[in-house]
Amino acid sequence: MASKPKAGRTSVARRSKKAGLPPGTLVYTGERRVESVRMTVIDYDERHVQERHITSIDECLPFRAAPAVTWVNIDGLHDVGVIETLGKTFELHPLLLEDILSTAQRPKFEDYEKNLFLVLKMLHFDEHHQGVETEQVSLIVGPNFVLSFQERVGDVFDSVRDRIRSGKGRIRKLGADYLAYSLLDAIVDSYFLILEKLGERIENLEEELVGNPSQRTLQQIHALKREMITLRRSIWPLRELVSGLQRSESPWIAESTRVYLRDVYDHTIQIIDTIESFRDMVSGMLDIYLSSISNRMNAVMKVLTIIATLFIPLTFIAGIYGMNFEHMPELEWRYGYAVVWAVMICVAAIMLVYFRRRKWL
Amino acid sequence: MASKPKAGRTSVARRSKKAGLPPGTLVYTGERRVESVRMTVIDYDERHVQERHITSIDECLPFRAAPAVTWVNIDGLHDVGVIETLGKTFELHPLLLEDILSTAQRPKFEDYEKNLFLVLKMLHFDEHHQGVETEQVSLIVGPNFVLSFQERVGDVFDSVRDRIRSGKGRIRKLGADYLAYSLLDAIVDSYFLILEKLGERIENLEEELVGNPSQRTLQQIHALKREMITLRRSIWPLRELVSGLQRSESPWIAESTRVYLRDVYDHTIQIIDTIESFRDMVSGMLDIYLSSISNRMNAVMKVLTIIATLFIPLTFIAGIYGMNFEHMPELEWRYGYAVVWAVMICVAAIMLVYFRRRKWL
Amino acid sequence: MASKPKAGRTSVARRSKKAGLPPGTLVYTGERRVESVRMTVIDYDERHVQERHITSIDECLPFRAAPAVTWVNIDGLHDVGVIETLGKTFELHPLLLEDILSTAQRPKFEDYEKNLFLVLKMLHFDEHHQGVETEQVSLIVGPNFVLSFQERVGDVFDSVRDRIRSGKGRIRKLGADYLAYSLLDAIVDSYFLILEKLGERIENLEEELVGNPSQRTLQQIHALKREMITLRRSIWPLRELVSGLQRSESPWIAESTRVYLRDVYDHTIQIIDTIESFRDMVSGMLDIYLSSISNRMNAVMKVLTIIATLFIPLTFIAGIYGMNFEHMPELEWRYGYAVVWAVMICVAAIMLVYFRRRKWL
Amino acid sequence: MASKPKAGRTSVARRSKKAGLPPGTLVYTGERRVESVRMTVIDYDERHVQERHITSIDECLPFRAAPAVTWVNIDGLHDVGVIETLGKTFELHPLLLEDILSTAQRPKFEDYEKNLFLVLKMLHFDEHHQGVETEQVSLIVGPNFVLSFQERVGDVFDSVRDRIRSGKGRIRKLGADYLAYSLLDAIVDSYFLILEKLGERIENLEEELVGNPSQRTLQQIHALKREMITLRRSIWPLRELVSGLQRSESPWIAESTRVYLRDVYDHTIQIIDTIESFRDMVSGMLDIYLSSISNRMNAVMKVLTIIATLFIPLTFIAGIYGMNFEHMPELEWRYGYAVVWAVMICVAAIMLVYFRRRKWL
Amino acid sequence: MASKPKAGRTSVARRSKKAGLPPGTLVYTGERRVESVRMTVIDYDERHVQERHITSIDECLPFRAAPAVTWVNIDGLHDVGVIETLGKTFELHPLLLEDILSTAQRPKFEDYEKNLFLVLKMLHFDEHHQGVETEQVSLIVGPNFVLSFQERVGDVFDSVRDRIRSGKGRIRKLGADYLAYSLLDAIVDSYFLILEKLGERIENLEEELVGNPSQRTLQQIHALKREMITLRRSIWPLRELVSGLQRSESPWIAESTRVYLRDVYDHTIQIIDTIESFRDMVSGMLDIYLSSISNRMNAVMKVLTIIATLFIPLTFIAGIYGMNFEHMPELEWRYGYAVVWAVMICVAAIMLVYFRRRKWL
Repeated sequence: MASKPKAGRTSVARRSKKAGLPPGTLVYTGERRVESVRMTVIDYDERHVQERHITSIDECLPFRAAPAVTWVNIDGLHDVGVIETLGKTFELHPLLLEDILSTAQRPKFEDYEKNLFLVLKMLHFDEHHQGVETEQVSLIVGPNFVLSFQERVGDVFDSVRDRIRSGKGRIRKLGADYLAYSLLDAIVDSYFLILEKLGERIENLEEELVGNPSQRTLQQIHALKREMITLRRSIWPLRELVSGLQRSESPWIAESTRVYLRDVYDHTIQIIDTIESFRDMVSGMLDIYLSSISNRMNAVMKVLTIIATLFIPLTFIAGIYGMNFEHMPELEWRYGYAVVWAVMICVAAIMLVYFRRRKWL
Repeated sequence: MASKPKAGRTSVARRSKKAGLPPGTLVYTGERRVESVRMTVIDYDERHVQERHITSIDECLPFRAAPAVTWVNIDGLHDVGVIETLGKTFELHPLLLEDILSTAQRPKFEDYEKNLFLVLKMLHFDEHHQGVETEQVSLIVGPNFVLSFQERVGDVFDSVRDRIRSGKGRIRKLGADYLAYSLLDAIVDSYFLILEKLGERIENLEEELVGNPSQRTLQQIHALKREMITLRRSIWPLRELVSGLQRSESPWIAESTRVYLRDVYDHTIQIIDTIESFRDMVSGMLDIYLSSISNRMNAVMKVLTIIATLFIPLTFIAGIYGMNFEHMPELEWRYGYAVVWAVMICVAAIMLVYFRRRKWL
Repeated sequence: MASKPKAGRTSVARRSKKAGLPPGTLVYTGERRVESVRMTVIDYDERHVQERHITSIDECLPFRAAPAVTWVNIDGLHDVGVIETLGKTFELHPLLLEDILSTAQRPKFEDYEKNLFLVLKMLHFDEHHQGVETEQVSLIVGPNFVLSFQERVGDVFDSVRDRIRSGKGRIRKLGADYLAYSLLDAIVDSYFLILEKLGERIENLEEELVGNPSQRTLQQIHALKREMITLRRSIWPLRELVSGLQRSESPWIAESTRVYLRDVYDHTIQIIDTIESFRDMVSGMLDIYLSSISNRMNAVMKVLTIIATLFIPLTFIAGIYGMNFEHMPELEWRYGYAVVWAVMICVAAIMLVYFRRRKWL
Repeated sequence: MASKPKAGRTSVARRSKKAGLPPGTLVYTGERRVESVRMTVIDYDERHVQERHITSIDECLPFRAAPAVTWVNIDGLHDVGVIETLGKTFELHPLLLEDILSTAQRPKFEDYEKNLFLVLKMLHFDEHHQGVETEQVSLIVGPNFVLSFQERVGDVFDSVRDRIRSGKGRIRKLGADYLAYSLLDAIVDSYFLILEKLGERIENLEEELVGNPSQRTLQQIHALKREMITLRRSIWPLRELVSGLQRSESPWIAESTRVYLRDVYDHTIQIIDTIESFRDMVSGMLDIYLSSISNRMNAVMKVLTIIATLFIPLTFIAGIYGMNFEHMPELEWRYGYAVVWAVMICVAAIMLVYFRRRKWL
Repeated sequence: MASKPKAGRTSVARRSKKAGLPPGTLVYTGERRVESVRMTVIDYDERHVQERHITSIDECLPFRAAPAVTWVNIDGLHDVGVIETLGKTFELHPLLLEDILSTAQRPKFEDYEKNLFLVLKMLHFDEHHQGVETEQVSLIVGPNFVLSFQERVGDVFDSVRDRIRSGKGRIRKLGADYLAYSLLDAIVDSYFLILEKLGERIENLEEELVGNPSQRTLQQIHALKREMITLRRSIWPLRELVSGLQRSESPWIAESTRVYLRDVYDHTIQIIDTIESFRDMVSGMLDIYLSSISNRMNAVMKVLTIIATLFIPLTFIAGIYGMNFEHMPELEWRYGYAVVWAVMICVAAIMLVYFRRRKWL
């Protein structure tokens, strides 16, 4: 969780590395997260499917030429040369390549006529730090190919791969746009898992809040609040992205795919809705925490007041008969001591009744 | 009431079950609320009406073909096979079927050219938990049929059924769009009952707040606030739904029905308005609670201060004459004791006047 | 004022009475505020004016047919039969009639082609409860007639009637649209009187707040806040109503009347503006109240601290020489008592100087 | 400053005077601020300029007819007859005349085809009350004339007059629209002076806040806040006014003048921007004030706690040896008194170390 | 940092200098920041580049005539004559020249048909005052020239100059619009550096807040908050500026440059996003500060309460046996003293158990 504030700062720091360089200069601004770049090609149509690990971009040229759908997936972005070659092979705009490498991008959709470009965030729940980690994913959709770029190995696309391999569902019958939709859908679906984790944490925190709130609880509420800020930043722009894609007039999006994109759009709205209610809940928790603090203070004050107001007058009475005047008639009276005790008990009783009336006891 | 936070979480959890499945996969994400699926068909036109319980979708095929309006109502969604058959019979889009089964949908309206699709929430006030429960209702409107899907038996449609049976009002003379409007109207009307319940609870809480606010009052205010969040989530999107339906250019909505939809739209706005004023009221209650807490604290402090400042100086005076110095002329003086008492009474009187001036008494 | 919270609730309760009835069913949802329905007809053109109390709708049929402007005013809505007959006579849409009788309507403008329908609120300041009461007024504008419906006798239209009777101004020369504008204008003008009353109350409360704020002040601020919520609900939708009317393309609104409607629109904006600044003022008052409470608490604490910190050390010194040790050299010393007094006075003086430095005195 | 709240109320009270009068009735709703109405005519074109005080509207008829630009300025609005005559002379709409006399108008722009109508506010900083006063200015722009109306003598138009007299700049070469722009510009420019005064007050208050905040500071912050509300109300609508004028398709605004209006628009935005940052600053000051209050309370509490917790245990020890038991071995012990002192000093020292550790000293 | 509030005020003060002057009057409203105006011309096309310091505007006339791109940069604005001559040479609108000299402009884009005009802010982080300083930069883009105006020597354009000199990248091949884009991009890129500095300060403050929050921390949070206000004011309008430029239909912006402008637009959005999250963070810090203050108060109160409630009853008991009654049987009892001690220890123990139960220890 402690890594979240840095996340914001780092994204700025990443960009600031590039200040002054000409536009289109390819510099990888993220951390080097994998040893070597891993490239995979999947090529399929209704009748065949072929999957291969490649080591050089040139190996995917034959697939590019064929009419079947070609999906090239790149894990690891630190090798600028690879990206550059790919750019030339698939005729990508230099600014597009630059955006792939700038891992602090805001999710967005851009239409570069020759192809469509999508940047979005993949979220992982890091069990160790109990925080959400973000990884940038870029998708490029062209006439019959999809390119996907990730910062490291490991993703949520396995279900898509399985469907392609097994030929289950519609995916093998449809084009590159449907593949792109499937990847987008897989990412958006994975957000529900993250939200579920967050929901669990909110619930735990709520129980802690009712049971035994402490300074730590406050810190956790603030940590949660901040994480929600990060999440919103990654997910809000998605709404615009998906609706842009859906309404785009690009020839690379078939009419039949739009209805699926509308479905993704609905999911996005639902996620944003959930985040907003989580935010409301967390705000409510903060209010409850603060008012429980002031309730406690009240309780402490009451105890102090009861004890002090009970004994201060009694101590005064005792003080009176502790004085050493020569002429104090009560002192010599036989029942003086007993009467003083009686008076004291009366005073205390009256006070207790008063406290009870005021509902302090 | 305690079940509300879970509601939010559960809706996410439901969705997350489906992460990774291909789009259009039919999985029922809700709880199994009824033993077996119950299907009813009502077929009517101006001259006849026929009502029948069916056990298989095939039984409604003859109704489908006839020109009369056919209303098929399904209670219980756990039998995916039934939904699938229905989908084929009425040529429904797979994504539409998926949405019917995903019971965590946000209310929405979608135009699938061949038919119109509405998802909305039916609200029940659960007297036992003193909270609002939501149930998803889906409506499909086609050329001369309406399909309605509910999670369990029991709904607010009985008034509509009665009107069809008795031929009261316009309903038998008009088409499937008017039937859909009537169902929508019945649901929206039932929200007013829920709002009335909430209004009662707010009023009770207000009386409690003025009379004897406690920690429990605060918890109830927060519970109410959260319930309002849930309600808003169910009802806000309705506005868009109804106005979408009204402005839709679908041939399945007759021009004459639009004026009725405008009426439903007005009711929706009125409901949203009421929720917003309830929210304002609840916020105001929170402010009153907090300031009454700090007022109490003030009162406690005042009592402490009055008692302490009254007796501390007096005790000091008593302490002085409790000292054991050999040469203390006052002690030997005949009227010493009486004079000390007089001084003490004076000091106390001055203090009391001071307190009265400051309006502490 | 106490009736305000109920207002919100009642409006919902009123609607909920009708849940399940077919649309267009005429049910009066308000209270029965008058003994019997009172109907008045005013018929006028540039040369003549005729005013008559009628007991049956049929009596206004001859006026309806004539080309002069006919204004039918109905006080009291509980006689559903009257409304129904009127509906048939003037060919009104059933939903329109239903809205007239539902007295919890939100102000709105609707264009029913054959005529225009306006619902708005008349506000009365109830001197007894020191609160604002609302009454629903409906206006129907047709080719050469205006129908107005009120819940009870007594309105702000007398100035309009006087102008018609005397032929003062333009009113007799212009059509039904100008009459409708005049009625609308009279209602909007009456809001300024309500705002003036509210302004007075705010000013009084402000003086109370500066002079002698109490728990009652807080309750009044909250009551004012809530009244403002009610007012906003009645007046905000007016903006839309007037601008809708102004921009409407209905043939029943002459081009020359639009400039007058723009004037009403400006007044509406000015009223909304004033309500918004009142809200800001009331919020500011709440802040002042709360900080004056915490200032008082501060003052109380200071007095306690000063008295306690002044006497606690002195009492300790007295306690020392109240001990009964056999060997306490100071006790036997001749000037012991005087020296102790001197020490005590010094300690007190030092403390007082310290308090003064810290600006506590 | 005390006059500000009234300002809001008065503006309502002014309007409420007119409730029930027919539209277009001319009633001056402001205070009578000048003895007699003062009228001035300036008539100019590129070659000549003529300036004259007139006593009757008829005197400006010859100027009206001539093709040169005619500027009629009226100081004082209480003589309704003058306004009426002017209205007839220049063919002004009755609603326009009514708006000129209603000095509680919201700034607005209206296009009455035959001429353009602008209402705006002139602000004066009243050094005596340290508050901002508003005066209503109305401008009417026609084919070759400008009419300006003010509540009293004294304005910010002298620089414009000087430029006309001297023939400096473009003003003599251009038409009535440029003159209207120049007057508008002069008013907007004068707002910067007001903002500067406010900025100074904010700065002074900030110094007071850091140096020695008192209850008075709080009152001043609230007074400032309220003044900002008044200012916003006068200036926000200006934005719409200027952009309306700029985008208007009236033939009385030359194409070349629009670029100047864009300039005024920019200034308006800049003023609104400044007001918004002032508001943010004042809000920040309120937060600082409140937290400094609670910091002080903290400091007071600490002193009380230190003194009390230091001496209460010591007083208890002294109390022990003030008891009169017959058998108290310590009392008879030779070094008893010295040991008790030693114990007391130890206890005090331990406490002081504890306080230091907790950073209370 | 202390200079920030002044910034707002000064910008107003600057403008107020000009109140009453005719539009288009050239007055430099900033401070004189450099000794003498420095002018540089860079003239280039694909094959040649020429760079020269000039002392008079006339020297750039030959470059103006040639088809190559001409970039004239002016450092220092106090010499109004220079600006005026330049205005004549390049046919600039007088209002445009006025805006260049008014250094309190809001960032904006204006299309003066003959050329495009951009005003924006260059930000410097002043290490000495630990605050952000702003400098106004104006850009004018014409058919084949760019003019840039700065308040003083020293800018972020060096990287652009280097690229022109070396012929690296596309810059030498493209026109004046690409040059303008490059300058804009350089400024926007430099904002990331400023954001990084701010991010560092936020992080430091957060550590201080967790470790040892003091009154100084609060002041720093507020200083940061205010700096954020200044930053927002400089950067928010940029969004509109860039999107205006991108969507402009001016012939001076080539179609191919628009894609680069979209890139700058994305960066602007990203900067605004970051500022917004910084604002959220700073708000969160304020909440944490305030609740840590009240937590401390709580701790202080607890200690006071524990000590006072522990010893006040004990002192009372001691006071009892300090009374001087003649008949007090306990005093004569042999084990009286020991029993009193035992009672006291019991009372103290019970209290301690109670405190522990309430979790105060």
